[in-house]
Amino acid sequence: MTDINRLIDGYFAVWNETKAERRRDLIAKTWAENAAYLDPIMSGEGHDGIDRMIAGAQAQFPGHVFRQIGKADNHNDRLRFSWVLVGPDGNEIGVAGTDFGTVSNDGRLAAITGFLDQMPTA
Amino acid sequence: MTDINRLIDGYFAVWNETKAERRRDLIAKTWAENAAYLDPIMSGEGHDGIDRMIAGAQAQFPGHVFRQIGKADNHNDRLRFSWVLVGPDGNEIGVAGTDFGTVSNDGRLAAITGFLDQMPTA
Repeated sequence: MTDINRLIDGYFAVWNETKAERRRDLIAKTWAENAAYLDPIMSGEGHDGIDRMIAGAQAQFPGHVFRQIGKADNHNDRLRFSWVLVGPDGNEIGVAGTDFGTVSNDGRLAAITGFLDQMPTA
Repeated sequence: MTDINRLIDGYFAVWNETKAERRRDLIAKTWAENAAYLDPIMSGEGHDGIDRMIAGAQAQFPGHVFRQIGKADNHNDRLRFSWVLVGPDGNEIGVAGTDFGTVSNDGRLAAITGFLDQMPTA
């Protein structure tokens, strides 16, 4: 579970890293080469595709941060964890989700599917 | 969403069908040929493997029924839904979970990963 928590910490670090070079390094450590991300709004494949997707999300939500809520859960090569989106003022903005994933043989993320648990109704 | 709900209804019908021949028919309608199921306790691959797994679970929990709780959620070819286990007396027995899956091109289940949300502490 320690390795899984470290991997998930890396996942959030990637989403929240706005320095391009540093984000690329974190992606290489956290995601397998042929990894894929898919949620209802965004998708990205491979290190380049995931980097472009996250850079786009950061541009859309400047100053926002993804923060894990609760504990991660894992079995076999599968994991799940939940998150909220925090605005520039440090307050949650009413966007929350749960991500499910698979871990590659080398301990990096192979795939993540994101689902939305909460969205602003406005 | 109608098709997804029908597919998930079929998924629960498979788990709850104790007549072997009828269960096999339901599996063929609900799961793709090369489908796979994996949770913290059980796993099954292909129609034969899934059938053996479910027959084993039914033998372990005679008279129990899986019942969906809440609404299913889906996007792209991904879905999730939650369930509780109901005992022979019709009461929930304190076992609940959430399943995540992918749907094959022909509209059947390609893969399900199960997670446990609640287990008896005794």
